[in-house]
Amino acid sequence: MSTITGIRTYDFRFPTSDTLSGSDAMNKDPDYSAAYVEISTSADDGIVGCGFVFTIGRGNDVVCAAIESMSRTLVGLEVERLLDDMKVAWDLLVHDSQLRWLGPEKGVEHMAIGALLSALWDIKAKRAGLPLWLLLARMEPEELVSTLDFRYMTDALTPGEAVQILKEGQKGKEERIEDIRRNGYPGYSTAAGWLGYSDEKMTAIAREETEVKGFRQIKLKVGQNLDDDLRRLDLARRTIGPDVRLAVDANQVWDVPQAIDWINHFHDFDLAWVEEPTSPDDVIGHATIARAINPIPVATGEQMQNRIMFKQYLQADAFGIMQIDATRVAGPQEIVMEYLLARKFHKPVCPHAGGVGLCEAVCHFAMFDYAAVSCTKEGRMIEYVDNQHEYFVNPVRIEHGDYQAPVAPGNGAQMTVETARKYLYKG
Amino acid sequence: MSTITGIRTYDFRFPTSDTLSGSDAMNKDPDYSAAYVEISTSADDGIVGCGFVFTIGRGNDVVCAAIESMSRTLVGLEVERLLDDMKVAWDLLVHDSQLRWLGPEKGVEHMAIGALLSALWDIKAKRAGLPLWLLLARMEPEELVSTLDFRYMTDALTPGEAVQILKEGQKGKEERIEDIRRNGYPGYSTAAGWLGYSDEKMTAIAREETEVKGFRQIKLKVGQNLDDDLRRLDLARRTIGPDVRLAVDANQVWDVPQAIDWINHFHDFDLAWVEEPTSPDDVIGHATIARAINPIPVATGEQMQNRIMFKQYLQADAFGIMQIDATRVAGPQEIVMEYLLARKFHKPVCPHAGGVGLCEAVCHFAMFDYAAVSCTKEGRMIEYVDNQHEYFVNPVRIEHGDYQAPVAPGNGAQMTVETARKYLYKG
Repeated sequence: MSTITGIRTYDFRFPTSDTLSGSDAMNKDPDYSAAYVEISTSADDGIVGCGFVFTIGRGNDVVCAAIESMSRTLVGLEVERLLDDMKVAWDLLVHDSQLRWLGPEKGVEHMAIGALLSALWDIKAKRAGLPLWLLLARMEPEELVSTLDFRYMTDALTPGEAVQILKEGQKGKEERIEDIRRNGYPGYSTAAGWLGYSDEKMTAIAREETEVKGFRQIKLKVGQNLDDDLRRLDLARRTIGPDVRLAVDANQVWDVPQAIDWINHFHDFDLAWVEEPTSPDDVIGHATIARAINPIPVATGEQMQNRIMFKQYLQADAFGIMQIDATRVAGPQEIVMEYLLARKFHKPVCPHAGGVGLCEAVCHFAMFDYAAVSCTKEGRMIEYVDNQHEYFVNPVRIEHGDYQAPVAPGNGAQMTVETARKYLYKG
Repeated sequence: MSTITGIRTYDFRFPTSDTLSGSDAMNKDPDYSAAYVEISTSADDGIVGCGFVFTIGRGNDVVCAAIESMSRTLVGLEVERLLDDMKVAWDLLVHDSQLRWLGPEKGVEHMAIGALLSALWDIKAKRAGLPLWLLLARMEPEELVSTLDFRYMTDALTPGEAVQILKEGQKGKEERIEDIRRNGYPGYSTAAGWLGYSDEKMTAIAREETEVKGFRQIKLKVGQNLDDDLRRLDLARRTIGPDVRLAVDANQVWDVPQAIDWINHFHDFDLAWVEEPTSPDDVIGHATIARAINPIPVATGEQMQNRIMFKQYLQADAFGIMQIDATRVAGPQEIVMEYLLARKFHKPVCPHAGGVGLCEAVCHFAMFDYAAVSCTKEGRMIEYVDNQHEYFVNPVRIEHGDYQAPVAPGNGAQMTVETARKYLYKG
């Protein structure tokens, strides 16, 4: 038996605004940041549970404060009891009767809960000696479903349906695990697309990402100026040719009527999707847009606050591609629920990544999904940007545009704190 | 010319869980709390701008941390520039390109913004020598609308429509202001309804609130046990008679199918509304429930994160009664937007109150609405609970069940810090 002995946070901020890497119509000068947390236990196995919240600068201190405030709930608890029934930790944090007033289940508090639950799953995976994706894929359907919270879900997905989906996923699972180990999982590149880049820089990077690195989709930021968008899309399409997929991302910059007008200028570019046309809170707005810009698919999700929003987008057919984020919702359990919902409603998930550690984190869930939930890679890929990977103990490896399967035990979130230390925020 | 010289927060927590006042099916042991903020300026007028976020205990420290973190944006700015164009302060806080990642526009960060903007409006009202409701009612339509943010709103309400609504509200406005000053604004009482109370205590308080204090509506908490609910509703209805309105509140305890089953046992009690049947995030779920329990109206809003959610509830006809909260959204500007939306879609607003300072804060907006927006009190009333009023410099006054018009300049949020000091949280 061991107990949780300490929870420590680190406020890391990388000065990415210097280069305008990460700049888009809404986020003009992000400083990619991580509210990073380490959970220590009394076990003598040397295992530290790691988790983080990705942010883009200011407010990262508030996320750290939220994690520290909640750590009082966990320190002193028995680790094995938590790892054997992860629903206990979920209930302690998500359903704390006083904390839920600050959400419920959204924003800073929910992100902080996600970092803590993620760190507990990291301990569970490290103790099992498995990368998280394989731990999840190998759990019995009933065991995995028992960790999930179906509150507010049952009008769309019941526990029985979830078990059934996972049972169907058992067939051929080991072959798909082998396929992931050999061939990885498709990625796509956003490196060329930042709004702060010149046309020359954009096309040069687009060529490099596709011809040299082998990505089969790129994505451009749009939404600041229509003429610029049309010129850049034309340039990009001519650079990558007709066979590489091209997506665009507006980062929530439009109102609903404006989104429809703007996007309807894009029909000539054979777009894979238009991402975040408006507020992530606007289910009805997205449904209206999706109908009006058909056949261009809508994609969204990186700023979707919780499983209740994803449920509604699926019920309302408000998007064609579902994007999850690894550190916005309450950790692995909520992300698994999102994948189960996507499977139930037959939508592909293409996870958001690129920010500090997101690539490292999110590939575990995409690979789990292929092994045990959707059982297909069709129309699915993970975003990739080459940012801050050097601060992770086990950075993702990309070959020919494919994410390679993580082999190290854990969830991928562990940072090399010593090398990142110079980016600790001084306040 | 004066500048903002300091922003100070106080973490007040009142031990209300001792008496189970405030207990319901979801919030079993709230400690009513306030993350209270004072903005000081270099002017020698003695005016301090006050605002707060109501919470129910744990996490109140995180809200204080969020306010303090944001105060760096405001300290040193010229006060007059902010007060003359309140949209500037809104944009600085709500559209901070890094902070919005933590929402956008929801949870702890959004509540903290609300406290700061509210404190700025408090300075504006105090400098004008007017209570906030009268300041708002006396602003020119174009001037008030220029302070509002229509981003994500224009598919439901345009600036032109907002001006038109306020222009229509000019007719008879002074008579309605006079009516408010003479007769106040209807309240209703939740004092009898807490789940932790015995039947005897519930009926005794229900009798006191209606027969002695003159409230014309009471509200009971429900959702923990159907048999208990039916017994308590029958008792309550027999106690108050057929002419006093009776509402119930489930505090989000049900899933959608369960809500429909449960509420359909309530048709015999002539309910004014069923409040918060499920998650406040679930627009589609509420619309489904509203159709299925007709003619019992659905009410919700006290935990609705922002104007984008209210917009969708109105578009989807997902509730019959719209409830706003004074300290969950981004201050007076967002609340005014909510009232304008309600007017456009012809829904009555019955504000949430009861928690520390909420009664003091929210009555300003209800009275402004009657004077200048909806121009009617029909089907409208403000929640009332007798909690912590003694810690406010200008506590609300209730006569014959009616909120009396605030006369002191400002927004009502100023606390008597000295008397509340013993409830400062020690960590």
